[in-house]
This record gives sequence, structure tokens and C-alpha cells, in this order.
Amino acid sequence: MIPLLVPDLPTTEELLPWLKRIDSNKWYSNFGPLVQEFELKLTKLLGSNLTTVSSGTSALELALLALDIPSNSKILLPAFTFPATVTAVKSVGLQPIFTDIDPNTWLLTPTIARQVLNRVSIDVIIPVTTFGHPQPTDEWDKFSHDTGITVLIDAASSFGKQPTGKHCIVTFSFHATKAFGIGEGGLVVANSAEFIEQVRILSNFGFDNGVIIKAGSNAKLSEYQAAVGLAQLERWAKISQKRQVVWDIYQHYLDQEILQNMPTNHIPAILSVKVKDNSTIERFAKCQIQTRRWYYPPLYKHPAFTDVPKFAPQANDYLPVTENLSLLGIPFHTSLTESDISYICNQL
Amino acid sequence: MIPLLVPDLPTTEELLPWLKRIDSNKWYSNFGPLVQEFELKLTKLLGSNLTTVSSGTSALELALLALDIPSNSKILLPAFTFPATVTAVKSVGLQPIFTDIDPNTWLLTPTIARQVLNRVSIDVIIPVTTFGHPQPTDEWDKFSHDTGITVLIDAASSFGKQPTGKHCIVTFSFHATKAFGIGEGGLVVANSAEFIEQVRILSNFGFDNGVIIKAGSNAKLSEYQAAVGLAQLERWAKISQKRQVVWDIYQHYLDQEILQNMPTNHIPAILSVKVKDNSTIERFAKCQIQTRRWYYPPLYKHPAFTDVPKFAPQANDYLPVTENLSLLGIPFHTSLTESDISYICNQL
Repeated sequence: MIPLLVPDLPTTEELLPWLKRIDSNKWYSNFGPLVQEFELKLTKLLGSNLTTVSSGTSALELALLALDIPSNSKILLPAFTFPATVTAVKSVGLQPIFTDIDPNTWLLTPTIARQVLNRVSIDVIIPVTTFGHPQPTDEWDKFSHDTGITVLIDAASSFGKQPTGKHCIVTFSFHATKAFGIGEGGLVVANSAEFIEQVRILSNFGFDNGVIIKAGSNAKLSEYQAAVGLAQLERWAKISQKRQVVWDIYQHYLDQEILQNMPTNHIPAILSVKVKDNSTIERFAKCQIQTRRWYYPPLYKHPAFTDVPKFAPQANDYLPVTENLSLLGIPFHTSLTESDISYICNQL
Repeated sequence: MIPLLVPDLPTTEELLPWLKRIDSNKWYSNFGPLVQEFELKLTKLLGSNLTTVSSGTSALELALLALDIPSNSKILLPAFTFPATVTAVKSVGLQPIFTDIDPNTWLLTPTIARQVLNRVSIDVIIPVTTFGHPQPTDEWDKFSHDTGITVLIDAASSFGKQPTGKHCIVTFSFHATKAFGIGEGGLVVANSAEFIEQVRILSNFGFDNGVIIKAGSNAKLSEYQAAVGLAQLERWAKISQKRQVVWDIYQHYLDQEILQNMPTNHIPAILSVKVKDNSTIERFAKCQIQTRRWYYPPLYKHPAFTDVPKFAPQANDYLPVTENLSLLGIPFHTSLTESDISYICNQL
């Protein structure tokens, strides 16, 4: 069986120096020295203010909570994304609205957002970096500046590949299945130090100088998870290199027409290809190649979200691109060999 | 300086066998083999159905969410507790109500709850195991049976010391500062396997057979945190023994009158003693002994909770016990020596 995902995380050997630091610090959570060092290194890497949290979902939830907007505020997001994008909106008591995606990049684009704005008022937009495709930060910055609408980019799968710009807030996931995985963890990045401080406060129940001004939750990263993060940072260049090799081989074997329209020199986080029908899925299963239909079914077909309003960029509430996208996620990880990849591509 | 808290967590050496299992499993979250083994061992220890989650706060949030009650439901809790008890209620969109505590045990007791019920209708009660004082499970079971009201015991500090009974739901925290600490983690325990399954589903976004029926969050425990938990379970008997020794010495030196009324043969989680005024706090500071006024100020004095209704057991909305309790948390951990303890007690 060729597995769909094989996480590439630090070995025990690579964790040891960090774990020994925990032994001597005797500090295990609550913004300890390893979390501080991890955040410092991430700040240098990303060049922006940031705070770690317990997951990519917590990152979205706390970023939305830190916006401090009324509970009936309307949040626009694509119907084609992982369910956490919408559960986060619902968890903090805001009103999600689904829209469609671009047929080539599979993104909720600024163009789509502007079209939807002609039909309904929106308070926050959550564009998603679908399968690792970066969002156009400059365009969203301009959009945010022009409209006054907050843009929160759900870059769960795109650690290190999605710039923050001047206005956009960006969240990342460090889940085991991500290119930069640590087990469980997340990150909120923003230009505003004040906003980031607010998220950090909310990740620690809302404690601000000993009292709770606004109720938060517990979304702190433990020192153990920070240890994994610090060890993973040292492996990150090598992981990226290995993913580049896998991607180069895939590009050699794959027909461009079945691929997501991706910027050149960009490695996808997840590899999903267009397929004609279910026969491809069955063929892969027979060939012992693990696959997954990522983000399927569309969010509006999950029982929990059937009541979420849908606004298409054009005149109706039917989202044709999301509805008709027929994709199949195929193996994409650093353990794949050239012969694995050629075997996989032969089935397409 | 004698520190207030020194976590007693596994060393790197003790973690190694579990970490090596992660290396070979290459499974890092999502109910992996270590989480499964940790839960199995906890089940044998506690004799009830349970599921691990990412923190004691998540445990409360998801247990409340899994009750599936209307958003205007009223949740009674003591005003004298850690803020997470009330942030959890607010986070899931329910209506908290504060009441008072017993002057001797510092608990919200079934007697207090029955008195409050004569004044206001309540849907769920969250009694807290204040400073590790267990709640009377049988009495709460009878209360729940008599009134039809759900009882959710916030036993954050009381791992292994608070039975579930027939009806009560119990949550625990594995935070680093707890007697059984793993860094960050939590546990929901209940008699009903169906309820526990619902909590587990909600801890994984709400995924139930591939679709979301009810929106949850991500509160899964990573394999790394489970590794710490498994190593900690092997140390648990020894930790409890060491805490017993510290407690015996304290009992020898301390005046019973300034102590919480605690069942005999029970080790407190946190040691808070009655003090007359601020001069004691200042004296401790001068003597280089770290202290903390736990749960101070009372919840209704935090800006985020001033709008929470207060119902005293008797006729008014003034909570005299909570309001007038003058306590000081003093060092209580396994690193204390007899001379530390005698020095601490000399200052009282």
C-alpha cells in the first residue's frame, strides 16, 4: 500500500537536546522558555508579529474572537475548504456565509469577494490557501483598505508560504499532516503587535494583569510541542527540499491539465488532481494506492451547515465550481520514491 | 526563594521508550496508538468511559457542547473557582449563574444547589472540586436523579480522586501544575459510552462518519502529550506517595483551624490557608516564600463576568462566603523538604 500521507517529523534523537532543556527548566506550559524561543525563531523567519496556539483551529477561533465584533457579524468563506474554517466561525458565535471558488486556482479570490459584496454585506472574509496555494496578500491588503473589511487568511496548510502584508491576519496549522508538522499546534500572524497580544491573552483564558477582561479559552502550546517545533525548524529546509524533489517528479509525469493552477516555484501542500468519475478512485484502491477526496462533500452538504446562507459571485445561490469540482487527493509526502510516483501517475 | 509550584513530570529518560514508539509508528495525532493506550490505562484506573482532550478547559467546553442543550440554558457554578469554569460556559454560548460556597469545605454543595433551585430554574450544575476537595458523587447522583438536572463536576485538580457515579459527568485537567501533570491535556469521564463518543467526535471538529453533524473544535491530544501521560502513569503511585509525605509534614505543623475542611486520608491538590490580612502575604514575600491568592478576585469581580447573575442560597444576591474568604496559597509540591515546610509554617 502506498500511503496518502506520511508525516515527516523529528525523531526522538533530534528531540533530545530540547527535551533535556525542559528537564532542567522544569517549566512545561504557560509561555515557557521553549515556546518563547520557538516564537522568536518563527518571528525571524516570517518577519511579523505572531503567537503560537494549540491548533490551526484555535488560531482561527482566537483570531476571530480577538476581532471583538458583534455576534451577528457575517463571515464570508469558501464552501470548498476543510470544515474547521466554518466550525471556528460557529464556535465563536459568528454567522458564516459560503461562496464559490475560482475554477482554476480553487481559491476564494478578491474578485469573487467583490462580486459577493454587491449582493450581501460582509464583516470579515476568510480566504483559504486551498491545498497550499498562496493567497495574493497585496490584493487582499488593497481590498481590506478599500472596503474596511477584515481579511483573515486561513493558511492552515501553508506555513512559511503565505505573507501577512500590512492588514491581513494569517493563521497556520502545525498539525502532523502539514508540511511543517509538530503533532498539534497552530500560529496566528499579524502586523499589529497589539492584536497578537490580544490573541495571546485569549489563549490563556483571557487573563490580562490577573483579571479576565474578555472570556477566552486555553489554547496554549506546551513546552513539549514547542520542543518538537524547535527540532522541526532545524529540519525545515531539508523537508522543503525533499518535497521539491517529489513535486518535480510528479510534474514530470502528470498532465498539467488535471492540476490546480499553482504559481511556478511553489510546492503544493496537498496534491489533488481532477478526475472524471469514480472509476479512478476504484482503480487506485485496487492498485493499493491510498487516496482521499479532500474537502468532500462541500461544506453546505454537511448536516451541521445546511442552514448556512450561500451567496454565489453572480446572481443565484448555486455554487457551480464547488459543486462540480471532481478531485482526488493522491499520495504526496517525502517518503515517496520515483517508482512510487510513476506507478501512481500511470493510474491516471 | 521557595517556589509555590514545582511540577513533577517525567524526565526525558522516562519518556524515551514512548517516544521511540512514536518514531516507529509515525503517527502523531488523531487518536493514535499512544492516545489509545493512555485512554485504555486510564479506563482501567478510573473504571469508567472516558476520552482525552487537549486541556481541562476543552474538557468542560466539549462536555457542555455534547449535552446539546439550548443556547439560553442556565448553568450554575460557584463564584469561587478558576475562571476556566465560567469561560467554558460562555465559550459554548450558555448562560452562567454564580452562587456561593460552603464556609468549611469551600465547595458548591448539593445543599446549596437545592437552596438556589428554590430561587431560580437551572439546567446544569457545575460543582467544582475546590483545591482538590472531592465532591460527594452519591449525593450528586441522587440530586441529578431527583431533579433531572445534569451535574458536570469540574474536577480539574482532582485526577483519580473524583468518582463518576451513575449520572455525573466529570472533567479533569492534566495541566503541568496539577498533581498528575503532562504539560497540557484534559479528560472527560462519564458512565455513558454514548456521551463520551459524542465528546470524542466534537474534539475532532464534529466528524461523524465523514460529515459534521454538529460543529465541534480541535481538542485532540497529540501522541507526544500521550507519551508524557503514559510515562506519568508509571510515576503516579510514587508522586502520590511523595505528596502524602509533604501533606503529613504540613499537618504536623499547621493549625487545623486555618485549613480547608478536607476528608481524612485525602491529599489536597493546592494548599490554601486562611489568613487574617495582607500582612501575612507581605511577610511571606519578605521571607522569600512564593504565594498566590488562588481564585482571587471572585469571578463576579472580573470585568468579563460582572454581568453574570448571582443567586445566593438564601434571599439576596450577595455571596458572603466567597466575598469574605481570605486565603493564601502556600507552596505545596514534591520538592519541599521538612525544613522548607517548617520554615513556611513558622510564618503563619
